[in-house]
Amino acid sequence: MTALVGLVRDDLEACNRLIIARMQSPVQLIPQLAAHLIAAGGKRLRPLLTLAAARLCGYRGERHVGLAACVEFIHTATLLHDDVVDESDLRRGQASANAVFGNQASVLVGDFLFARAFQLMVADGSLEVLDILCSAAATIAEGEVLQLVIQNDTTSTEAQYLDVIEGKTAALFAAATRVGAVVAERPKAEAEALDSYGRNLGIAFQLVDDALDYSAAQEKLGKTVGDDFREGKITLPVLLAFERGDETEKTFWRRVLEERDQKDGDLAEALILMGRHRAIEDTIVRARHYGDRAIAALSAFGACPEKAALTGVVEFCIARAR
Amino acid sequence: MTALVGLVRDDLEACNRLIIARMQSPVQLIPQLAAHLIAAGGKRLRPLLTLAAARLCGYRGERHVGLAACVEFIHTATLLHDDVVDESDLRRGQASANAVFGNQASVLVGDFLFARAFQLMVADGSLEVLDILCSAAATIAEGEVLQLVIQNDTTSTEAQYLDVIEGKTAALFAAATRVGAVVAERPKAEAEALDSYGRNLGIAFQLVDDALDYSAAQEKLGKTVGDDFREGKITLPVLLAFERGDETEKTFWRRVLEERDQKDGDLAEALILMGRHRAIEDTIVRARHYGDRAIAALSAFGACPEKAALTGVVEFCIARAR
Repeated sequence: MTALVGLVRDDLEACNRLIIARMQSPVQLIPQLAAHLIAAGGKRLRPLLTLAAARLCGYRGERHVGLAACVEFIHTATLLHDDVVDESDLRRGQASANAVFGNQASVLVGDFLFARAFQLMVADGSLEVLDILCSAAATIAEGEVLQLVIQNDTTSTEAQYLDVIEGKTAALFAAATRVGAVVAERPKAEAEALDSYGRNLGIAFQLVDDALDYSAAQEKLGKTVGDDFREGKITLPVLLAFERGDETEKTFWRRVLEERDQKDGDLAEALILMGRHRAIEDTIVRARHYGDRAIAALSAFGACPEKAALTGVVEFCIARAR
Repeated sequence: MTALVGLVRDDLEACNRLIIARMQSPVQLIPQLAAHLIAAGGKRLRPLLTLAAARLCGYRGERHVGLAACVEFIHTATLLHDDVVDESDLRRGQASANAVFGNQASVLVGDFLFARAFQLMVADGSLEVLDILCSAAATIAEGEVLQLVIQNDTTSTEAQYLDVIEGKTAALFAAATRVGAVVAERPKAEAEALDSYGRNLGIAFQLVDDALDYSAAQEKLGKTVGDDFREGKITLPVLLAFERGDETEKTFWRRVLEERDQKDGDLAEALILMGRHRAIEDTIVRARHYGDRAIAALSAFGACPEKAALTGVVEFCIARAR
């Protein structure tokens, strides 16, 4: 990450200035609430990917700055709507916007940021870029709805889980990197290579996130362990522990995740079962697999600092699990 | 309305087919939930305005059908998010999508429909149309957030109330009619005339809606009286009754709307106070004023069946109050 940030520092600063400028509104609650998330200082991972992908493609203009801001707005809007969705109490280690401002404000300010994102795309003026990012927005929503449909359902499959994370997470990563090739007017093959890089990185990133939710490493990142567990969210660690468990264990998972009947000690018990079946380790193995595919997709590009930095991002995402 | 529907019947059927086709998704909950609202059979007022405005401008192509569907998707998405916002139990006389499917599904399916709307705009391919509708989407969100900020606050002003309804309602009406002139490639003056028509119609429409919430006529439309009252929503009838009331009455309004301390008989008392101060009648007078401005804006166009039908829509919207 450090190499990546170093490479595009000026672009990132321009992007941050644009984000602050475009989240303004005469309705004060909007910048207040947006700042709560945006100032919360996410890693800006997605906009960094757009900036670096464009530079990797030899782009020397400024359009990628606006599109990086657009990608961050879409991401921030989905976080605000997730606050409604998950009733999550922690977001990047602080109270979620929802807990502070309420469901209604989170929904509406999220809508505002979505609209701002589309306005930034229109200002960019490329219908191809608009198509990529609008399609990603639709896919993200489909992934989030599918996650809602299968939550608390221990009979859901690993394939359904992959559909969920490809939609809710990987689609935006793929769009964020693909547009880098589009603004640079590179051949379709490079756009598809960057799409594949972003998509596989996004899947790896989410797999690690879902592993972290059951891992002590999570606390280092200022998040609580077991948020997904308390919500009865069906993630790969759960699916692996369930399918590898005996009937007694399956009964336990059904009670805590399907019936949501949880009492003290249940999270500890879940962690023991996951340990017994190597559910966390094998989730990280899957993440490593997708991370390797992301790196392989970069073979379309010759050696350069941007390629090295994008390779480093994959390693960074997977290293979070340690 | 009948004249309008008659004039664009084929276009409306094409629009309805497109709406059904574009709300599909492999994630079944999405069409299910969307159908709950879309099949609930709104009047399709906004898409009808787009279709008629394009025809008024002499447009003979098919682009207006896709844009009308886009306008209906944006409207439906805001209804879904309003269900979260207002905890409204009734929407067009039936249980709101939210009551049936929950907050989370309403937010996410609303996001999907927003994305679909933007995809329809991208398919249309006009950056000018994209600019108009994306700006409207941002303005709608600002209006909804402002409404949230001033709700339960009896010190808010009529000017703030007008800002709210211009944002949450009139902006989409204005965009829906303006794009009719844009697809027909008519001069800016006609686009602005149709924008003014839609904006003033939208304000009149919302004023009547807010009057209806305290009127027996509401029951004829299958909605309950007093939803806004129970939510402590500050609308013009309330503002008029409050500013014209004595100190005892102001104390009443503060208790029921600011403290939200409501008991049996309070709604009846509110209706008595509004009657005493002609709050409903004067809200309708305001609506009539904006309706007349909408009709005046049509003077930019020569007499034709479309102009007559659009004039009729204004009368229809105001007549709902009787």
